[in-house]
Amino acid sequence: MTKPPPTLRWSGGTNGHLVLLDQTRLPGQVVELACRDVEDVWEAIRSLRVRGAPAIGIAAAYGVVLAATEKTQVSAAIERLATSRPTAVNLFWALQRMQTVADSDPAERNPQDLAERLLNEARQIHGEDRGQCAAIGRHGALRLADLPEGAGILTHCNAGALATGGEGTALAVIFALHAAGKRPHVFVDETRPLLQGARLTAWELQQRGIRATLICDSMAAQVMREGRVRAVITGADRIAASGDTANKIGTYSVAVAANAHQVPFYIAAPTTTFDLSLDSGEQIPIEERLAEEITCLAGTPTAPADIAVYNPAFDVTPARLIRAIISERGVIEPVTASSVRQHTAASC
Amino acid sequence: MTKPPPTLRWSGGTNGHLVLLDQTRLPGQVVELACRDVEDVWEAIRSLRVRGAPAIGIAAAYGVVLAATEKTQVSAAIERLATSRPTAVNLFWALQRMQTVADSDPAERNPQDLAERLLNEARQIHGEDRGQCAAIGRHGALRLADLPEGAGILTHCNAGALATGGEGTALAVIFALHAAGKRPHVFVDETRPLLQGARLTAWELQQRGIRATLICDSMAAQVMREGRVRAVITGADRIAASGDTANKIGTYSVAVAANAHQVPFYIAAPTTTFDLSLDSGEQIPIEERLAEEITCLAGTPTAPADIAVYNPAFDVTPARLIRAIISERGVIEPVTASSVRQHTAASC
Repeated sequence: MTKPPPTLRWSGGTNGHLVLLDQTRLPGQVVELACRDVEDVWEAIRSLRVRGAPAIGIAAAYGVVLAATEKTQVSAAIERLATSRPTAVNLFWALQRMQTVADSDPAERNPQDLAERLLNEARQIHGEDRGQCAAIGRHGALRLADLPEGAGILTHCNAGALATGGEGTALAVIFALHAAGKRPHVFVDETRPLLQGARLTAWELQQRGIRATLICDSMAAQVMREGRVRAVITGADRIAASGDTANKIGTYSVAVAANAHQVPFYIAAPTTTFDLSLDSGEQIPIEERLAEEITCLAGTPTAPADIAVYNPAFDVTPARLIRAIISERGVIEPVTASSVRQHTAASC
Repeated sequence: MTKPPPTLRWSGGTNGHLVLLDQTRLPGQVVELACRDVEDVWEAIRSLRVRGAPAIGIAAAYGVVLAATEKTQVSAAIERLATSRPTAVNLFWALQRMQTVADSDPAERNPQDLAERLLNEARQIHGEDRGQCAAIGRHGALRLADLPEGAGILTHCNAGALATGGEGTALAVIFALHAAGKRPHVFVDETRPLLQGARLTAWELQQRGIRATLICDSMAAQVMREGRVRAVITGADRIAASGDTANKIGTYSVAVAANAHQVPFYIAAPTTTFDLSLDSGEQIPIEERLAEEITCLAGTPTAPADIAVYNPAFDVTPARLIRAIISERGVIEPVTASSVRQHTAASC
């Protein structure tokens, strides 16, 4: 199999553009999408052509570069991109970094200078994320080193290379375990409604030759009951100061089931996913998406017309259900407000 | 909206045939399907054109009538129909009743007599189920009479008129609560992979003007966490002597979540769904179905080709997670081997 294109890349110099692997068309079609203005990037984030908290942040940072002809446009672009999706905090974190760069030299000499500094910053964000993914993989594989060979690991949604600028968060841990000869057997929740598990995670694992079994989300508890899952690991979209973690809808259900079966539940996320301005998960804004995501599939209606639908895109798993959080800095365990504070305050 | 045709009906006399509402085409198309021989009925059960434990039993009973030209054919038909699906015990129970009728008069006068007796028995089974549904509705509404008006009730899969010869089991309780002015708000799990909740339960509730909100299965825990669910009620495919209950895959996950949120979890099923020959749920045979049910939707692939899939059609909820079982005879509560024995031994 040919190596697929990267999740996202910048093509050219300051007059270049962002190129995304269009994830809405995976796994059937491997198609790159050029984003040449801020609206293209906004739409790509909104429509989940690029998704995953770290990848959204990187895409938005590059999106700002597309507006870098003058400073007022940069601020407008940042404001616009901030409205694309509400839950993943990496988006706001990355946009804040871009704003700081734009603000850092009030006497901007010329637009070209600004564009170069913004492109450098976006590349920096991208590169840092790549390094963080690798570190998460190392810390996670160390933390899970006690797992027996061939152990079952369950994951939900996609927290792999497709969700980040590097090798992923939760999947980086699985990749590192695999590279260490652990040969994990991954149970992949399909992850309704948009099937990121079936479409993206299964695809990533298959490409790397890692044993994977696809299940419906509702089967996770059953697979645990059968004793086939030794650990659960997922990514995160925003982690409050308490350790409460927002992630793809259905993560909470998996955490509840894991708790009921004494299976440890881990979160893997870079420190850019922490939002210490929020005391608890209750304060994390949860995006609600269109009913059609649930009532139609591949254009075919799968429910009666006009049925009411509840479609939160995320849920919050309380810290008490999380055994540990693995970041690029190491492991937070147990997960408490004080351990989170200590971990995030530490210098790298 | 025109009243839809019944879930199943016999058309004509002993030379007649079985007519099913083809549930694989709902809610988009309301189409009846004529089954004129045993293979037609076998295929309809196997392909879930008719599904739901009580409805499968009734369909199989009528299927036997289609072979009622001579006794050896009847036994062969029973043997064949018994292979259509393994989990719902009502199938075997109904076929056993048909076999008993076939065996009851060794000196059969003529094929017409046998056919008449078999058709009478199938109609009897159908009629009894209708009555049992009504009684389940009454007992359930009485048991849940304490629910406040507008209370949220969550259900999984379809245990309505489409699953039975009458008004349903779990949905019969909801219909009775609605008729009693309780105006329940039903959270409908879509029920992957075959979406019986989205396609069938949402459709039944909508037709009756009962407030329904469709959710993905992975959202059930979240809706409970939000405090919006006061009770969970589902049907059953087989209940062991211990009270352990096999039902559509995902039911166990819902029961675990309900338990974690102190939401009472109820099963509604006729006594024909009990299998006292099995001590515990571990012994219930669980059907595994094709990978394509998970990897394709409406003919569109939704996962990489050749990905491994685990697709159990049912799971078992242990008695300890079940607050009560509601049958046509009343309420089993608490659910223990001794209360099950007492309940099923009682005369009607």
